[in-house]
Amino acid sequence: MTGNWGRWGSDDEAGALNLVTPDVTLKAARLVRTGRTLGLAQPLGPSTASPRHRPGPMRFMNRDAGDYALGARSPGGFRFAEDTVQFPTHSGTHADTLAHAWTGEEIYNGHPQSSTRTTRGAQRCGAEKLVPVVTRGVLVDLVAATGGPLAASAPVGVDELRRGIAEAGVTPETGDAVLIRTGWLETQGNGGDYFADEPGITAEAARWLADHDVALVGADNYAVEQQSATSGFPAHLLLLHQHGVPLLENLELAELGDALAAEARSTFLFVFAPIPLVGSTATPVTPVVVL
Amino acid sequence: MTGNWGRWGSDDEAGALNLVTPDVTLKAARLVRTGRTLGLAQPLGPSTASPRHRPGPMRFMNRDAGDYALGARSPGGFRFAEDTVQFPTHSGTHADTLAHAWTGEEIYNGHPQSSTRTTRGAQRCGAEKLVPVVTRGVLVDLVAATGGPLAASAPVGVDELRRGIAEAGVTPETGDAVLIRTGWLETQGNGGDYFADEPGITAEAARWLADHDVALVGADNYAVEQQSATSGFPAHLLLLHQHGVPLLENLELAELGDALAAEARSTFLFVFAPIPLVGSTATPVTPVVVL
Amino acid sequence: MTGNWGRWGSDDEAGALNLVTPDVTLKAARLVRTGRTLGLAQPLGPSTASPRHRPGPMRFMNRDAGDYALGARSPGGFRFAEDTVQFPTHSGTHADTLAHAWTGEEIYNGHPQSSTRTTRGAQRCGAEKLVPVVTRGVLVDLVAATGGPLAASAPVGVDELRRGIAEAGVTPETGDAVLIRTGWLETQGNGGDYFADEPGITAEAARWLADHDVALVGADNYAVEQQSATSGFPAHLLLLHQHGVPLLENLELAELGDALAAEARSTFLFVFAPIPLVGSTATPVTPVVVL
Amino acid sequence: MTGNWGRWGSDDEAGALNLVTPDVTLKAARLVRTGRTLGLAQPLGPSTASPRHRPGPMRFMNRDAGDYALGARSPGGFRFAEDTVQFPTHSGTHADTLAHAWTGEEIYNGHPQSSTRTTRGAQRCGAEKLVPVVTRGVLVDLVAATGGPLAASAPVGVDELRRGIAEAGVTPETGDAVLIRTGWLETQGNGGDYFADEPGITAEAARWLADHDVALVGADNYAVEQQSATSGFPAHLLLLHQHGVPLLENLELAELGDALAAEARSTFLFVFAPIPLVGSTATPVTPVVVL
Repeated sequence: MTGNWGRWGSDDEAGALNLVTPDVTLKAARLVRTGRTLGLAQPLGPSTASPRHRPGPMRFMNRDAGDYALGARSPGGFRFAEDTVQFPTHSGTHADTLAHAWTGEEIYNGHPQSSTRTTRGAQRCGAEKLVPVVTRGVLVDLVAATGGPLAASAPVGVDELRRGIAEAGVTPETGDAVLIRTGWLETQGNGGDYFADEPGITAEAARWLADHDVALVGADNYAVEQQSATSGFPAHLLLLHQHGVPLLENLELAELGDALAAEARSTFLFVFAPIPLVGSTATPVTPVVVL
Repeated sequence: MTGNWGRWGSDDEAGALNLVTPDVTLKAARLVRTGRTLGLAQPLGPSTASPRHRPGPMRFMNRDAGDYALGARSPGGFRFAEDTVQFPTHSGTHADTLAHAWTGEEIYNGHPQSSTRTTRGAQRCGAEKLVPVVTRGVLVDLVAATGGPLAASAPVGVDELRRGIAEAGVTPETGDAVLIRTGWLETQGNGGDYFADEPGITAEAARWLADHDVALVGADNYAVEQQSATSGFPAHLLLLHQHGVPLLENLELAELGDALAAEARSTFLFVFAPIPLVGSTATPVTPVVVL
Repeated sequence: MTGNWGRWGSDDEAGALNLVTPDVTLKAARLVRTGRTLGLAQPLGPSTASPRHRPGPMRFMNRDAGDYALGARSPGGFRFAEDTVQFPTHSGTHADTLAHAWTGEEIYNGHPQSSTRTTRGAQRCGAEKLVPVVTRGVLVDLVAATGGPLAASAPVGVDELRRGIAEAGVTPETGDAVLIRTGWLETQGNGGDYFADEPGITAEAARWLADHDVALVGADNYAVEQQSATSGFPAHLLLLHQHGVPLLENLELAELGDALAAEARSTFLFVFAPIPLVGSTATPVTPVVVL
Repeated sequence: MTGNWGRWGSDDEAGALNLVTPDVTLKAARLVRTGRTLGLAQPLGPSTASPRHRPGPMRFMNRDAGDYALGARSPGGFRFAEDTVQFPTHSGTHADTLAHAWTGEEIYNGHPQSSTRTTRGAQRCGAEKLVPVVTRGVLVDLVAATGGPLAASAPVGVDELRRGIAEAGVTPETGDAVLIRTGWLETQGNGGDYFADEPGITAEAARWLADHDVALVGADNYAVEQQSATSGFPAHLLLLHQHGVPLLENLELAELGDALAAEARSTFLFVFAPIPLVGSTATPVTPVVVL
């Protein structure tokens, strides 16, 4: 197996996140110019777009103001509300972990597929093994570059990746988080055909990103990679399985794109703070950008 | 009502997070010295400590390697695993939202308590209204200051807060995230009496923090404030209800404390990236520190 | 309040099920002729028809054969599988409890509506208060009587109820379970407009049934009563609220109708064995008929 | 494989329930003497005793009186409450299906174990394949026979089964539901050591019951069979796996025992009306007895 297997030892479960060394973080911190902060996550709730085969997120109240209106006691005047949530981990804005996709009998780094089973979830490469990183973010803005959102099933190859980086002299570097704005969520996210054939990166583009040693790849679509009737998931296998690069899906990139365009830049401080859900194959995350 | 009601307009639902302006973020970014990055969240799973009245987090597999071992097809060789999670939002490391606690008929900023009801959750001040912020973090390390973890029900007053900040000349400033290490999680977190009477801040300490216009207050215990048979939750009302200051609970602060002690500092870049759970009264979060 | 409030004491929570005395059961047992047994419940699972505002039933495996295929130990050769289910209680074939519907501030028998709240569910008249009963069942078969399924929004009044009972000399009696076959589930249950405007009983028909002291009323539709843009739920209030008559919804009545038609009868032994879900407003049930 | 494999065809998934023919039901109906009706199910809710490795049942309100107290509209005066439940299917009073336990690679009747997997649950022998039956019930009352509840780990062998049937001349017959009162739930059910080593049937007793062609075996304990440090689950394999006899667990048998003792009888009309949970390995049931 080519790729990053064994690169950080046979026990490694963090993959390309290892590429974000303190030096990479230090350098990224210097990108802060205005201090303006943006979150890239969709609200996660019953209205979050979900594919047919997955129930949407649910919230159940365990205590609320209705209890007090109906006479519940308020010791010392204190009142409180609580709730429980339930959601498929691949709902809304989330990170795919290295336990999510594989081929053959082994997941990333040669860990056995048998480490992911019903009784215990993903014992290897689950969401609690994703380490938080602070690194340089690079926006590939294809909406800005092409004058509008990409069409269904439009392929984003290496040329498109290069063209989508507006800032002169910027190419992906070791430890970068590369985010790709296709315009798909902006146009199809609410009641459109969001889960139909999306535009996204090709296998070649995925390989190019992996060859540049990026730490994270994300997009404003549901699977990062281009989808059509016959496409399969080659970029998932290249990035997650072979190179240990977590994927960020269903990102909100419109506001970021507009903000960067106004400053003619493509890079920024990027924070990845995944929730350490034990044994999960994905996890919700609110990616944060500082301009 | 004193406090911050009306300070950011009658519609405001973000509270003291408004205090983290771009300038505050800019200044905080300059605190980065080594680039070393730490996450402060506990793993969130079935083993996460939970109080008796709340079920612990659950994870259910929707597809896993067992399906393939039993003969499920792998189109093009592609295999994947998925899961669903369920947890009370006040489980593990989380932020209490401004909809969580109140007194009388109004929550923070005069929003009616009736905005939090069974059918729709918290329509005002739910987790999706917490904005991500990047700001200065200040550690109050009482384990370092007192030579060990605090005892059960030990009060942390204003004097203790001052004494727990090791770095000369540092006091809480506008927009700070103040984190208080009591040692409680370190000593009681695994199988101990974690949900019994915890050490924590007093009402006076809460008022002092609010008077310094901090944006966030967190601790390595389950309720930030000191608990005993008769204490109630005055700091919750002062911070969440009157001043709109979200609370961070069940933080992992031991590694941070040790790292800061080694560098004789108390401040650092702090990132708050809450998951925007629609209508929830709390939300999981992985606070991130950059040294 | 007219109806059955106070009839069985001010504490009563079982309502019209009280009408099924041992004598009623004894008499019903004598209706058994062939011993043929039928269940009237739909399968309850992800494919069960659900209205838009309710998620469908879910099942999560906790242990399955995949664990063993991947190497889980089988002490002494023993293997087992387990699962967890989740469903809105008004899904599939279920009984509406007396806590489900009301008007004003009181539910059935004058119990305060405040007995049904978030923290504790229905403390009065929840599903655990429905007692199992064995009684006479009477089928009103409007498919047989009218030569086919009823149209959308078709009203079933007193005349239709009378006409739908094929067996000479049979009218509803004290303690009966009256089941109404409209044909709606048979024609709309799978992918049709099942949750649109259904045929069902009118308010007058509901009053007539209550006046005959029936114990249970059920139908092969989602709300027993006729639905249209303006109809509301008067039969729910008459039967559940005023008379304490539980409703059986989403019944499978086609096979029963055909079996009874072949024997030219309308009555049979009927068993109501509700699951005692504590504090729930409805509960799944498999009604059983013996011919 | 000995036992009932193939006895009702290679596709059979109902097992010993096939033994309850219309004639068996007819004969059972004649056992009704007084019409007194009893349910044998525990309330199913948060207080239901659950073993450590399974979360207890949960109920979440989706709408309740609190909504109305806080101002929700009541069109035409109509108010309603709804809820959602979640529980491991082996909670409280339930039937183990023929998909629950096996050895080797095949479940009951030679169906492959691979029919039970994460993505689809139990496609063979799940709860929706359990047919409702009305048959003769026989109580083996060891509390009455021995003067008190059995001790922990007490074995119930063939002699004890014979001795526990009080009514002269009664032995298990084809299609019977045999219920065994050990007294365990009565003494350990609330806060005791219920899930510790229970008294119950031995492998020999299980074989004897199977040889008598019973349709169902149940008990007032959590696993029907005797449990100790070294016992394993031989009766599960004999009854569920080899003979296709569903097990009824956590039955409430005290009231039934007292009622039968007062009439010096051991037999009665018994109704088994399982909820057809699609693909589940167990299902809640309210067994009903008519005396």
